[in-house]
Amino acid sequence: MRNVTVFVTLKQGVLDPQGKAIQESLNSLGYQEVQGARVGKYIELQVEDGPNLEARIKEMCDKLLANPVIEDYSFDVEEAVRS
Amino acid sequence: MRNVTVFVTLKQGVLDPQGKAIQESLNSLGYQEVQGARVGKYIELQVEDGPNLEARIKEMCDKLLANPVIEDYSFDVEEAVRS
Repeated sequence: MRNVTVFVTLKQGVLDPQGKAIQESLNSLGYQEVQGARVGKYIELQVEDGPNLEARIKEMCDKLLANPVIEDYSFDVEEAVRS
Repeated sequence: MRNVTVFVTLKQGVLDPQGKAIQESLNSLGYQEVQGARVGKYIELQVEDGPNLEARIKEMCDKLLANPVIEDYSFDVEEAVRS
């Protein structure tokens, strides 16, 4: 079993209203030092080991987890700790 | 300027219907090897350097970025690359 962590972020240049709202909320709470905020997704998958694991995860990202038109993604694959 | 990356995840034991939907969608697309999925948030902040930076970021997480009742968070602080 592998733990796969997928990070999905908006591409540079794509407007991020949720991030803007977070920045403005933090500023109005007194955290004036926050100059920018962008929000992405963080997806943890438990995946059975198999052939072409990385290629299949890339496919999953392209087909379902990210929207390649407006989002970038990256992922890490780690051996799951067995208990 | 610092780049702060905040990861917000649901606590162990809290139901994650979005993750369940992702798992079932991947399974029905033919990715039977996916045994579990959990979704979190990934927030990138640009923060002016200052005293008590880490303590202030912890406060931001507790007050706004995460719901400490059902979510865990962690964060990394990095020196921003100046261009």
